[in-house]
Amino acid sequence: PGLLLGDAFPNFEADTTIGKLKLYDFLGDSWGILFSHPRDYTPVCTTELGQAAELSPEFTKRNVKMIALSIDSLEEHYSWSKDILAYNNDETVSEIPFPIIADDRRELAVELGMLDPEEKDQSGMPLTARCVFVISPDKKLKLSLLYPATTGRNFDEILRVIDSLQLTAHKRVATPVNWKPGDCVMVPPAIPEDEARSLFPAGVYTKELPSGKRYLRYTPQP
Amino acid sequence: PGLLLGDAFPNFEADTTIGKLKLYDFLGDSWGILFSHPRDYTPVCTTELGQAAELSPEFTKRNVKMIALSIDSLEEHYSWSKDILAYNNDETVSEIPFPIIADDRRELAVELGMLDPEEKDQSGMPLTARCVFVISPDKKLKLSLLYPATTGRNFDEILRVIDSLQLTAHKRVATPVNWKPGDCVMVPPAIPEDEARSLFPAGVYTKELPSGKRYLRYTPQP
Repeated sequence: PGLLLGDAFPNFEADTTIGKLKLYDFLGDSWGILFSHPRDYTPVCTTELGQAAELSPEFTKRNVKMIALSIDSLEEHYSWSKDILAYNNDETVSEIPFPIIADDRRELAVELGMLDPEEKDQSGMPLTARCVFVISPDKKLKLSLLYPATTGRNFDEILRVIDSLQLTAHKRVATPVNWKPGDCVMVPPAIPEDEARSLFPAGVYTKELPSGKRYLRYTPQP
Repeated sequence: PGLLLGDAFPNFEADTTIGKLKLYDFLGDSWGILFSHPRDYTPVCTTELGQAAELSPEFTKRNVKMIALSIDSLEEHYSWSKDILAYNNDETVSEIPFPIIADDRRELAVELGMLDPEEKDQSGMPLTARCVFVISPDKKLKLSLLYPATTGRNFDEILRVIDSLQLTAHKRVATPVNWKPGDCVMVPPAIPEDEARSLFPAGVYTKELPSGKRYLRYTPQP
């Protein structure tokens, strides 16, 4: 278990709060984000799913379909959802805007390497960790995060990496450390100087380095 | 290959820019962060290692030892290091303040599941992805990130999660979504109300929820 970058994401079938779904059918041609949480009715998870619900228009705008997962039952998901909405305190939203998978037999959690052995339920079974998998339209794993139960995720970082993945899927650029949308991007070394000039009419700036190699090239975000 | 949360981190031996090291001896009682990059003399990696070098006092302050890794040779690491320092443009720092592993036979990259199959060198061999492994003093994997070559990491997020991991290793709290040091933290459900009151003399605030369950409890960061 444990998915590596570039692996084809398993086309699993699962019971969710919007009914049974098959992953590929659900995603269609969209990007996908699958994120697990340890347990319904727990504090950090409630803040995370609340934030995910609030940001769902940002994911939709980026053509990313969201799916949550934990080892709780559908009944627990349904009634916990009311707590999440109350936590968000947004009366215009009456439903969690993405499905939550009920992986109560831990089949997906095991298959996808999502368990956190340090967090156990009352019967001693491990809970799911805070995993994030970003899936590209060709159903490959593009990026993953694996955080323990103690540490809530950062949805700004999740949107930041989706922006980078989508930009670099369509433009021949890469994003530097701590990049944010609108910042300059890097020109990959495989693009020759002439071609770089015509590909990036906004200009290419090359930083001189002791090695004399001309690889540290910036251009405004295309 | 591919490490899961809670796995004992392999006590590997490696050739590095500060000589041969064995992981556990190098780490001693410290926390550790092992991060891989695709290739020396490439643009995003230079910005990342430059940022890592600049932030090394922040990691030291947190008792975290840093180790970088790529599939390049020691000779490449040594001469590329000069480029990184020139990029940083900080004349007070004359050396990269952490070792860089030369994994030129890709042994660690394979063992630790760090390869990115979409990025290949001139001979068609896959490069390392942008992985981050945070290792606790008991040598277990506490958290991991797996980003592709196109997408530079965010060192603010890396420091944020280290702050959360260290806080929650010593105090019985967990950090909510988007938490930053100094923000309120969550009281885990396993702590009964009486005990929570005495454990957190700064006060515990419980949010009322439709389920009537009293699990959404905040307290100022202890």
